[in-house]
Amino acid sequence: MKKKDFPVENVRRFIEPGPIVLVSSSYKGEHNIMTMGWHMIMEFVPSLIGCYIWTENHSFDMIKKSGECVINVPTVDMASTVVKIGNSSGRDTDKFEAYNLTAEKGKKVKAPLIKECYANFECKLYDKSLINKYNLFVFEVVKAHVATTPKFPQTIHYRGDGLFMIAGPTTSKFKKGFKPEML
Amino acid sequence: MKKKDFPVENVRRFIEPGPIVLVSSSYKGEHNIMTMGWHMIMEFVPSLIGCYIWTENHSFDMIKKSGECVINVPTVDMASTVVKIGNSSGRDTDKFEAYNLTAEKGKKVKAPLIKECYANFECKLYDKSLINKYNLFVFEVVKAHVATTPKFPQTIHYRGDGLFMIAGPTTSKFKKGFKPEML
Repeated sequence: MKKKDFPVENVRRFIEPGPIVLVSSSYKGEHNIMTMGWHMIMEFVPSLIGCYIWTENHSFDMIKKSGECVINVPTVDMASTVVKIGNSSGRDTDKFEAYNLTAEKGKKVKAPLIKECYANFECKLYDKSLINKYNLFVFEVVKAHVATTPKFPQTIHYRGDGLFMIAGPTTSKFKKGFKPEML
Repeated sequence: MKKKDFPVENVRRFIEPGPIVLVSSSYKGEHNIMTMGWHMIMEFVPSLIGCYIWTENHSFDMIKKSGECVINVPTVDMASTVVKIGNSSGRDTDKFEAYNLTAEKGKKVKAPLIKECYANFECKLYDKSLINKYNLFVFEVVKAHVATTPKFPQTIHYRGDGLFMIAGPTTSKFKKGFKPEML
């Protein structure tokens, strides 16, 4: 999968539709991956993403202490792996090894990118003040890598209860009438 | 469209996949509707949804002052209307009237439900402390109404640039291996 640098202010293209994402992290020589479904774009510049990370996740401390992570966007061909990642713990499993995933070096963070994912957003913790109250990590995307093809990935969207919605087609047929300032 | 009461702690089923939603509000006899793409589930109990509302939206003050709104989930058959709502302003347009939408009375809030939408979540402002810094409204869903059919609505998911991803099928084929506590 060939990837290109992607403008960080445009990561909404892939985050806003609500895909389940994989969050990879690294701390003191250990790496880990968790699934995440609760996230939202919060700003274009700086490029901010709000993320709910439960205290019970093994990644919680790793991300809080390292102040970094990578948000990786998987596609439907990885769905079984995504489920396995979400149903195992980094406490006893090296998920990269167990699920045959490739850890790639980031450009701006020490947390590893997951090579098999369609997109990888290198993130630094921008605001930790909401972690205690809401488990809300506000990250700044400092570098983005996106596959050159397909243009619109078939992402998977969690509905709870083990059910996923698989992304359907992307259409421009409602574009008529859009005001440029509303895009 | 027949609707049923729906457990507020389960609204993630419809919010987590990331659909564009319509936010309706009411203040001092005026009502309005805005589109919203930046939102996330933040808690099950209480049922919290974090929402980014831009200060320039006419709805911003109405929601901040009334402390209420309804989050309505539209489906693909309403996509043209959703675009029109997002590209007009409540400053000069009564959007219910202009776009032939039906305002229904809520059970717990004064803000109107949009009858034509698949689901309606009555919300009260739970935490206003993040509005100034992040335009982030934390709402509690206090009452939820969801159509009885279809089980999985064909929601629309904004990608920016006037493009929408239309929800594809919902599948249980990855359910195998899910641990109940992970659902």
